Amino acid sequence: MIYLDNASTTKVFPKVLETFSKVSKESFFNPSSLYAFREKEILTEAREAIAKEIGANSDEIYFCSSGTEANNLAILGGVKNKKLSVLTSEGEHPSIYEPIKSLVGKGFNVKFGGLNNDTSIDENKIVELADKDCGFLSLIHASNETGAVNDIKDVFSKIKKNNLKVITHSDGVQAFLKTPVDVKELGVDLYSISAHKIGGLKGVGALYIKKGVHINPILLGGGQERGVRSGTENVAGIASFVTAIKEYKTLAKQTDFKALRKAFLEKFVSELEKLEVRFLINETHNQLPNILSISIVDIQSEVLQRILAEKDNIYIGLGSACASSKKGNRILQSAGRTAKEIAGNIRISFGIDNTADDVKHSASLIVKRIKELL
Amino acid sequence: MIYLDNASTTKVFPKVLETFSKVSKESFFNPSSLYAFREKEILTEAREAIAKEIGANSDEIYFCSSGTEANNLAILGGVKNKKLSVLTSEGEHPSIYEPIKSLVGKGFNVKFGGLNNDTSIDENKIVELADKDCGFLSLIHASNETGAVNDIKDVFSKIKKNNLKVITHSDGVQAFLKTPVDVKELGVDLYSISAHKIGGLKGVGALYIKKGVHINPILLGGGQERGVRSGTENVAGIASFVTAIKEYKTLAKQTDFKALRKAFLEKFVSELEKLEVRFLINETHNQLPNILSISIVDIQSEVLQRILAEKDNIYIGLGSACASSKKGNRILQSAGRTAKEIAGNIRISFGIDNTADDVKHSASLIVKRIKELL
Repeated sequence: MIYLDNASTTKVFPKVLETFSKVSKESFFNPSSLYAFREKEILTEAREAIAKEIGANSDEIYFCSSGTEANNLAILGGVKNKKLSVLTSEGEHPSIYEPIKSLVGKGFNVKFGGLNNDTSIDENKIVELADKDCGFLSLIHASNETGAVNDIKDVFSKIKKNNLKVITHSDGVQAFLKTPVDVKELGVDLYSISAHKIGGLKGVGALYIKKGVHINPILLGGGQERGVRSGTENVAGIASFVTAIKEYKTLAKQTDFKALRKAFLEKFVSELEKLEVRFLINETHNQLPNILSISIVDIQSEVLQRILAEKDNIYIGLGSACASSKKGNRILQSAGRTAKEIAGNIRISFGIDNTADDVKHSASLIVKRIKELL
Repeated sequence: MIYLDNASTTKVFPKVLETFSKVSKESFFNPSSLYAFREKEILTEAREAIAKEIGANSDEIYFCSSGTEANNLAILGGVKNKKLSVLTSEGEHPSIYEPIKSLVGKGFNVKFGGLNNDTSIDENKIVELADKDCGFLSLIHASNETGAVNDIKDVFSKIKKNNLKVITHSDGVQAFLKTPVDVKELGVDLYSISAHKIGGLKGVGALYIKKGVHINPILLGGGQERGVRSGTENVAGIASFVTAIKEYKTLAKQTDFKALRKAFLEKFVSELEKLEVRFLINETHNQLPNILSISIVDIQSEVLQRILAEKDNIYIGLGSACASSKKGNRILQSAGRTAKEIAGNIRISFGIDNTADDVKHSASLIVKRIKELL
């Protein structure tokens, strides 16, 4: 099997599962219990380890169940004042886009900025839309669809210069450990991350909330996570998030994502150029090297994906696996792609499990299957 | 160590962790991916297995991250019409009580019914409060603090007789597998359960939603769980929920909770009666046998809990571990307990790991420590 969807991370699993099993067996007390010293300690250590990775303080890290929940918590908990406008981009993950869209029906003034042709956020447009009454701004750090890294530091600083009340949020689920993240330097007030994108377990996410920024909880109850997120903390899952970070970082250092991308592209382009087919690489200058979005005109990428999975045991992505494939593709559309360029869009993610041989072999086979489909 | 808090379940862990590790390694595809056949199948199988346990259909089961989330989803997603009133009891878990309380500030007409002296819900009062404009009614199935099992079937049927628009919900987190549950027979529209209360993993819960009942999602995004709950499903966690159910049921059959309760109480009462101390057992006729709530007047139960943990390696509960201990105890207060009866309240939970010798030994030691505190 060659897994080129969502960036393969199975090499991280063994140690993650080891931590998870160990903590599940040894530290199973409800962390809210007064006597649950070790459980509380594990949560504190995890908060410290995660804070360190993004330049935060440990008391600024709040655990939740996923990147989706962290994004929903930031938006639905952070947007409070109807007199202030809410601003985001067309390049957001559905877990940002949908909660922000839901605010429209609740009477909020919501603005969406578009994307540049290279799929990055049109930063000038965002700055233009952010008037003095902008209360909340959410911009994705790195696109989950194309890997475009947005210069959120620059946008946030420009907007904050004239507006002291704006709360800034960034969805860092795709960016975390794949591009440098320092929340203080980025000037971001809220930042979402998720464990499973780096080989941690599904069901563990976290939101950075800058000290002094107050957001409303969206899950109410026992008041865990200092009132911001109720629900018994997934102690073992959180502990294994830290293991995933350590393992991923070690393995990622040994992986040359740029070289994998280059090896794939060279093979892919040279073979595809032999066919009479128009194709387009959706990329920008500041690009996550592990994501590669290609539009192949005149094929249906869903069919290509299915054939590759069934016949070749090769797994590729199409836009976001989190979004229904029936809806078209908002992100590529906003970047000016035509319906045909969207229908034939594939997304290749390079992970720490992939080798240069794997990706070259895959590139050949993908072109072979494209040829059959033309 | 003798663990008498939250009902011990460590015997369930090994097979749960085995399933979790196996599924994590073998079925790691994002279940939303078109090619993720096995992952989709695991979710379907889990839905079927869980539905079977509560008399539901598999397409009425929606996975989420916890009992707290299931309760919040039921309340915040199910209460929609401000013209209709919302009714609940003073005996609810914080993950019901707090979201319902939050509706007051949003302009909803919210009513709270009290408890009987035996800590069960005052059912007549609930029926009285449920006028024809009641739109949503949530009653806990079995109390997490005292184990009182409420006759929700009777209350729901009385109220539904005169009111066709009311949506009924029950928090079944404590009741699930501990008292018979058949959602169709109970006449409940929404029913919450959680994996970790039966030895499954933290971070996995589910909400039963009766076919035809529509609730709004509280987490928006990729539209997973048929639009009701966005966020990548925790496939391995969900698969291990099914393992936990099987294991727990097998082990619970071999455990005589009533006999454990009786053995504890006989020892405890006979020894405590030698001391000059007033005590009170908070129980009702229809009682979960695995929970025992005792008020010992003139002791501080937090101190007792701490000493038992530190010196005797015995872990007991105090009210709900999910609630801050500083807040007093709403549930016992509503059942007419005095401040002193609340301050000296302990909760003993019998689990499948406990033996008769364990509980008798614990009863003696608890009385010994009470004596020292008097």
